[in-house]
Amino acid sequence: MDQKTTEIWEQFRDLLRKMTSYGEALALLHWDLRTGAPKNGAEARAATIGMLATENFKLQTSEEMGVYLSYLNRPEVLAELNETDRRLVSTVQEEYDYNVKIPPQKFQEYTELVSHAETLWTDFKRNSDYAGFEPYLTKIVEKTQEFIDYWGPKATRYDTLLHMYEPELTVEKLDQVFGRLRDRLVPLVQQIAEASDRPDASFLDNTFDIAKQHKFSLDMLKEIGYDLDGGRVDETEHPFETTINPGDVRITTHYYEDDLTSALFSSLHEGGHALYEQNVDSKLNGTPLSQGTSMGIHESQSRFWENFIGRSREFWNRYYGELQQHFPEQLKDVSVDQFYRAINRVESSLIRIEADELTYNLHVIIRYEIEKMIFNEGLAVSDLPKVWNEKYQSYLGVTPSNDGEGVLQDVHWSGGSFGYFPSYALGNMYAAQFAHTIRKELPEFDSLIAAGNLGPIKDWLTDKIYKYGKSLKPAEIIKQVTGEDLNPDYLADYLEQKYKEVYKL
Amino acid sequence: MDQKTTEIWEQFRDLLRKMTSYGEALALLHWDLRTGAPKNGAEARAATIGMLATENFKLQTSEEMGVYLSYLNRPEVLAELNETDRRLVSTVQEEYDYNVKIPPQKFQEYTELVSHAETLWTDFKRNSDYAGFEPYLTKIVEKTQEFIDYWGPKATRYDTLLHMYEPELTVEKLDQVFGRLRDRLVPLVQQIAEASDRPDASFLDNTFDIAKQHKFSLDMLKEIGYDLDGGRVDETEHPFETTINPGDVRITTHYYEDDLTSALFSSLHEGGHALYEQNVDSKLNGTPLSQGTSMGIHESQSRFWENFIGRSREFWNRYYGELQQHFPEQLKDVSVDQFYRAINRVESSLIRIEADELTYNLHVIIRYEIEKMIFNEGLAVSDLPKVWNEKYQSYLGVTPSNDGEGVLQDVHWSGGSFGYFPSYALGNMYAAQFAHTIRKELPEFDSLIAAGNLGPIKDWLTDKIYKYGKSLKPAEIIKQVTGEDLNPDYLADYLEQKYKEVYKL
Repeated sequence: MDQKTTEIWEQFRDLLRKMTSYGEALALLHWDLRTGAPKNGAEARAATIGMLATENFKLQTSEEMGVYLSYLNRPEVLAELNETDRRLVSTVQEEYDYNVKIPPQKFQEYTELVSHAETLWTDFKRNSDYAGFEPYLTKIVEKTQEFIDYWGPKATRYDTLLHMYEPELTVEKLDQVFGRLRDRLVPLVQQIAEASDRPDASFLDNTFDIAKQHKFSLDMLKEIGYDLDGGRVDETEHPFETTINPGDVRITTHYYEDDLTSALFSSLHEGGHALYEQNVDSKLNGTPLSQGTSMGIHESQSRFWENFIGRSREFWNRYYGELQQHFPEQLKDVSVDQFYRAINRVESSLIRIEADELTYNLHVIIRYEIEKMIFNEGLAVSDLPKVWNEKYQSYLGVTPSNDGEGVLQDVHWSGGSFGYFPSYALGNMYAAQFAHTIRKELPEFDSLIAAGNLGPIKDWLTDKIYKYGKSLKPAEIIKQVTGEDLNPDYLADYLEQKYKEVYKL
Repeated sequence: MDQKTTEIWEQFRDLLRKMTSYGEALALLHWDLRTGAPKNGAEARAATIGMLATENFKLQTSEEMGVYLSYLNRPEVLAELNETDRRLVSTVQEEYDYNVKIPPQKFQEYTELVSHAETLWTDFKRNSDYAGFEPYLTKIVEKTQEFIDYWGPKATRYDTLLHMYEPELTVEKLDQVFGRLRDRLVPLVQQIAEASDRPDASFLDNTFDIAKQHKFSLDMLKEIGYDLDGGRVDETEHPFETTINPGDVRITTHYYEDDLTSALFSSLHEGGHALYEQNVDSKLNGTPLSQGTSMGIHESQSRFWENFIGRSREFWNRYYGELQQHFPEQLKDVSVDQFYRAINRVESSLIRIEADELTYNLHVIIRYEIEKMIFNEGLAVSDLPKVWNEKYQSYLGVTPSNDGEGVLQDVHWSGGSFGYFPSYALGNMYAAQFAHTIRKELPEFDSLIAAGNLGPIKDWLTDKIYKYGKSLKPAEIIKQVTGEDLNPDYLADYLEQKYKEVYKL
């Protein structure tokens, strides 16, 4: 590198580090809003988040950034960079192109709005107050529509939103993939509904001390390799993972005294997200590559640890004894087989994050269809509770008794995350495809789990996926790791095999 | 106001709001470091705090700010402003003059250093590791010395640091005031040491459930009027109050299972700070006037609620029954008189924040003398533990068994807060002077406390002190409220009267 290139490269990296610091402050301000920030501070907090996000946005789209990018993005300069640095330049260029189209003032208004709405959502959900939430959601949709115009609609308006979370994803492709999945899963769900030998989960109708749940969940997080020196666990209404910085990857869960498994599996789920973030190569620190590559790949890791590990027979052969020690009274007459079948029972339910592995995908498809209706067919925000309830009745045979457990159940829309939900089903498909490969490459996979020796599994995932952070695209990762493109049949195969065994079909 | 003045005024206010938002982010980043941020994130966090503090500092000392100030600070413009707005301009001008002398790069290095040191301090204290801490403290002192040179030394180098926390305070004045206080208190401490009728505090050697302590402390915080919709309570190594924004004023405490009163009185102490911050007039929001006017006046409020209210006989006549209900076993044979005398026993101790009202001032004087030695006499940082231990032996007759309970006991030096400690004794003197006045103006003061009707007391303090925030100087407040300047005799009178009664002298 000549002297000028070196100088520009250093300035470019300094600018990225500065943006990373804004990102840390913003992540913490958001985390804090959800983990107990007092409500009287919400208005000033929204202004603060708006200000910092705008400053960060200004840097991201600054003239300075434009100058660096056009200098670095020339063949003779790119030729001097290593592959990772080239990826860094192209990723920053993509974000620049994407964001430079939004006027900073619009961006600030938007971030203040969603920050405020996210804070209020907790109360709206608790009080099932859709009427209170509706004006906020209406504004968020309006502003999102405006942003789609700035970005320029793709094949459909909703495609523009999908692209934000999963670069290659289109409505056309999702319609196909979801179609294939539905075709294979619907008969399975049907078979299960008619099965005569059903799991007995009656022992879960009991009271489970929250302090003990917390202790056991924490133990399991340590078992999967979550590093508490680089993270912390808090309680929130809706569990989430957030990366404050690479040495500070936090998760939250929600304990219920009358539910033994909710906090446990949400801990493993968020723990899976956290393992991904904690194991990105540290050479990517201070750049936008130091994070999971897409929402779909991210979700594949949370679902992998929650379901492919945490809901496996081998896992409970190893850890059920410890769980029994925490709850000797409640579990004294429950065998590990009964427990395993109970945590894998299939039941149509109202809440996505509580859903079993099979019906989960239907929750996602409902949300996907509603979001398409909003952005491609002009569905009015005021009609959302009605459409929501109808779809739940028609797809899952259940109807929410109030909007708190219906349309208000997730925080995502209050934060403006439209186009995000499909990633959840995509995550299941990626996870199954990775699991298929890991069983070939680590033939002792099952016995590692049964021995509680999860380190080699985490190491395999780190080596194949985590360490790359965002320096590989999702489609590249899936191809490089599994040798083929996304294929929904791996998920269908896995679910068929597992659930036929659980239901003795 | 003509159009140009109106425009500049609005731009000036926007700039202040932006600085306020940086302040909120920084306060939260610091709060988080102390309330459980994982240690692996400390390095990146220090960089983030450094970056944001530097951005804020750049705004504070920007050319733009200089232009606004020189425009606004002209007689014809000032004449058009109301008194509060004139104070705003002069306060911002003072901060500008003070900060414009520090090169931004130096400032960033400094904030990164103290942020890092503050984080590490918790472990250094826990492990009594002064050798580990020394290189950080050495650097902090060096940089502080550099800053004194930038600011320009006053009568002595240490005067420059005092000025930062208490504008009117000088070494000369402090030497006088502390001298007068010592002259009156030393004989009293002596008399007490020889008293034959001593409080029996043996019932405090017991175990007190932490959850119950937490509950009772929270109840007492509500009683004094701390608004939990605008605050939250957490546990940290060293208790503190921090204002994230005017609607988000947080406090922390530290519970000890073998100590009933530590968390309780530190809660009332930090709660007193919080009452001040929660009751500043909201018209000052978004400006640097929206906070307590000085460290000394601030400390007067924490000490007022902790001691003048919380350690009074009337307070326990009202609340002791409730405390007994929380700890029926431990307190069943303890009368309210015995309890009152026990929480007001005088004993030389090692830890300032645990000290009684009388010896507390000696802890502060030791620290004051050491800080003077560092900055005015070149005392080496490596000699601090030795000097510390000698002074504790000579002033209080006790010697720390390790540096964790000695020189490392407080977080302040790791955060670079030199010149801060004298405020603690100043706070006691202000508090006594305010208490003298409130008894004249609210003759029912004692019976209000005895009735648990603390609202009128909080209202009086709000009306006389809190609402003004930083729009009055400490000397103006004390004069306006009490009709005279700071007078250490009020504290000495109060202590003499109270402790002669407690010790039946």
